[in-house]
Amino acid sequence: MKADLKITDCHVATMVEGGVPYGAIEDAAILIRDGAIVWVGPRADLPAHEAAETHALDGRWVTPGLIDCHTHLVFGGDRSGEFEQRLEGATYEEIARAGGGIVSSVRATREASEDDLYASALSRLEGLTATGVTTVEIKSGYGLDRDSERKMLRVARRIGREAGVRVRTSYLGLHAVPPEFRGSDEARAAYVDLAIDDILPAAHVEGLVDAVDAYCEPIAFSGEEVSRLFDRAKALGLPVKLHADQLSDGGGAALAARHHALSADHIEHATEAGIEAMGQAGVVAVLLPGAYLMLRETTPPPIALLRKHGVAMAVATDCNPGTSPVASMTAAITLACVQFRLTPEEALAGATRHAARALGLSDQIGTLAPGKRADLAVWDITRPAELAYWLGKPLLSRRYRDGLRLTT
Amino acid sequence: MKADLKITDCHVATMVEGGVPYGAIEDAAILIRDGAIVWVGPRADLPAHEAAETHALDGRWVTPGLIDCHTHLVFGGDRSGEFEQRLEGATYEEIARAGGGIVSSVRATREASEDDLYASALSRLEGLTATGVTTVEIKSGYGLDRDSERKMLRVARRIGREAGVRVRTSYLGLHAVPPEFRGSDEARAAYVDLAIDDILPAAHVEGLVDAVDAYCEPIAFSGEEVSRLFDRAKALGLPVKLHADQLSDGGGAALAARHHALSADHIEHATEAGIEAMGQAGVVAVLLPGAYLMLRETTPPPIALLRKHGVAMAVATDCNPGTSPVASMTAAITLACVQFRLTPEEALAGATRHAARALGLSDQIGTLAPGKRADLAVWDITRPAELAYWLGKPLLSRRYRDGLRLTT
Ligand SMILES: [Zn+2]
Ligand SMILES: [Zn+2]
Repeated sequence: MKADLKITDCHVATMVEGGVPYGAIEDAAILIRDGAIVWVGPRADLPAHEAAETHALDGRWVTPGLIDCHTHLVFGGDRSGEFEQRLEGATYEEIARAGGGIVSSVRATREASEDDLYASALSRLEGLTATGVTTVEIKSGYGLDRDSERKMLRVARRIGREAGVRVRTSYLGLHAVPPEFRGSDEARAAYVDLAIDDILPAAHVEGLVDAVDAYCEPIAFSGEEVSRLFDRAKALGLPVKLHADQLSDGGGAALAARHHALSADHIEHATEAGIEAMGQAGVVAVLLPGAYLMLRETTPPPIALLRKHGVAMAVATDCNPGTSPVASMTAAITLACVQFRLTPEEALAGATRHAARALGLSDQIGTLAPGKRADLAVWDITRPAELAYWLGKPLLSRRYRDGLRLTT
Repeated sequence: MKADLKITDCHVATMVEGGVPYGAIEDAAILIRDGAIVWVGPRADLPAHEAAETHALDGRWVTPGLIDCHTHLVFGGDRSGEFEQRLEGATYEEIARAGGGIVSSVRATREASEDDLYASALSRLEGLTATGVTTVEIKSGYGLDRDSERKMLRVARRIGREAGVRVRTSYLGLHAVPPEFRGSDEARAAYVDLAIDDILPAAHVEGLVDAVDAYCEPIAFSGEEVSRLFDRAKALGLPVKLHADQLSDGGGAALAARHHALSADHIEHATEAGIEAMGQAGVVAVLLPGAYLMLRETTPPPIALLRKHGVAMAVATDCNPGTSPVASMTAAITLACVQFRLTPEEALAGATRHAARALGLSDQIGTLAPGKRADLAVWDITRPAELAYWLGKPLLSRRYRDGLRLTT
């Protein structure tokens, strides 16, 4: 067997399902060719091979490169001022009246140049890559007009080209009604039309859209509006995903299931019927414990029901300026365990195998097995559960993408 | 004015009390000589000076180096296995029967060499220094015999000599009754005697003890036992501090006040009478939001009462293997704001000015003012509240200790 790279002197959590916990292989080796894994197994079983290069990892653990499958990484400004005002006693209304809330992120995003958006997103991406991320999903949704939405998505694409991570984009035009359309029901309807019939096709034709997302909640968009968007996505051949049932039960889980969405995200308030439908339709539940912490929510997602109905659970940072200024993937894993009582193995599957599925990338990434891309995270730990246990301890030793060692 | 170093092109959060928020000075400069600040103020007001060296900070913010005033940084092993077992459904009893809990940390700490303890503590210290820490308090309390307690404290001293941080040690012999003294009330009493009359003096005579701490809780040590320890500490000229009222009201806050402790730590369940006594005695409240998160506590410390009675609030990581595997000082700040509703300014004061007071170091560190040591953290932020807002985003640009730029 010929290989460009042999990785050895390591333990591997393959995260392949159905075998030992974590799909773990102690004292393992990996052979990589053309950026893909061609062999992984116990070092003692290595087939005859010629490897151009060998990396010995001193007994460290290797996992699939982590996948942050739900982020709003690209945005202008931040909302730390608002965060401070709230803690100093300002009400949401006072902040909204002073121009705060999502409207302030929309304004700052529209005003920012592509270079500014790129630079500020990179400063947040650093937190993700330092915690093992090799693939990140990035949503639009703070532009809310044709040029600004495409600007956000172009920045996301540039991150994918230049920043050493695999990027999947989601078009989130139905994130909020932009301020200039808030006057009346007619104006609102006009924005929904614009988002579906104008902005989406324009972004799609430019090759900027890997999936279509929406925020389904009484304070945002209705199931009917989302359905129209999803029908349009289907016509364009794009997969869909949904912010569903975060603050109240709006039937989002069932809606996602009806449209065979890749994922339904948040779902703190989903009903058992909705969860059951997700299970039957193979919709991944994306859990976002950072937003849960920051919003001080008290109703966790229905983990027992998700387990009962065989719904795959992913875990993501939801990195965003308003409700989850979280830029650490291992922090998301820890919070999922502490707050939602996921086991460390479930949480790590949620940051690898199931996150890949939530992005429609199961055939390429998320586990370490022959045929998969050689995206790896190498860790200074003695057992995989440490990834969930520590908060803020630097654990990453290095990352590989497509079999190439990354320097950041 | 002569200076070894001029720091310029920066904004400074001096954290000096009583003026503008954060004691902030925009477009500031700092002059440093012999490791101490000799001048700090608006750049426009700089006095005539000669500086051997100048560091321009490109508009970054400078704060006092952060002070983590409550950690158990030195310990053998970790408890990630137990963390995992609990999430997989094991009860505390099952874990205890299998040799888990604090006893396992005591066993691993006793078995570890000084070099092993040093190396593992450094791996956690990295998380603290990467989040701006220049001073760290380190407790004993997993040795629980004369040699092992001194071994822990020697490792703490070595960290202070070799690892680029200022270290204050606390002797925590009354942390738990060690397994070999658990058979009877007589055995327990014998351990308390040993901890007070033998281990403490032995550690003190070796110069290993900066303060004396204890764990006052029904599951640990009584107020009477703690009082005996504190009287001994006073006889040795050592200041005291206390783990108080964490899980129940045991009168710990009042006990700390009676003994004029530097601090009472945790205090989730302290009564108003206890808080009032703390205020009158000038005892600092050390808030530990990492343990609160990890233990899923629901009774936060009485912040309103602490404010009412003028009790200074410090914030710390409580980095320890059982209840707070947290190794990020900015995460502690964020959690204090989100969970306890401290304002960002209160939380930053808790990690600087008030933390210095909790260690008896107010005359040396904790604010940026003439005469104070030049321990600085330099941040890639546009306003101080970002230190509280972001979770996991790398914000630190560099640190200085005693006016010397640190390389890690
Ligand atoms: Zn989101
Ligand atoms: Zn403690």
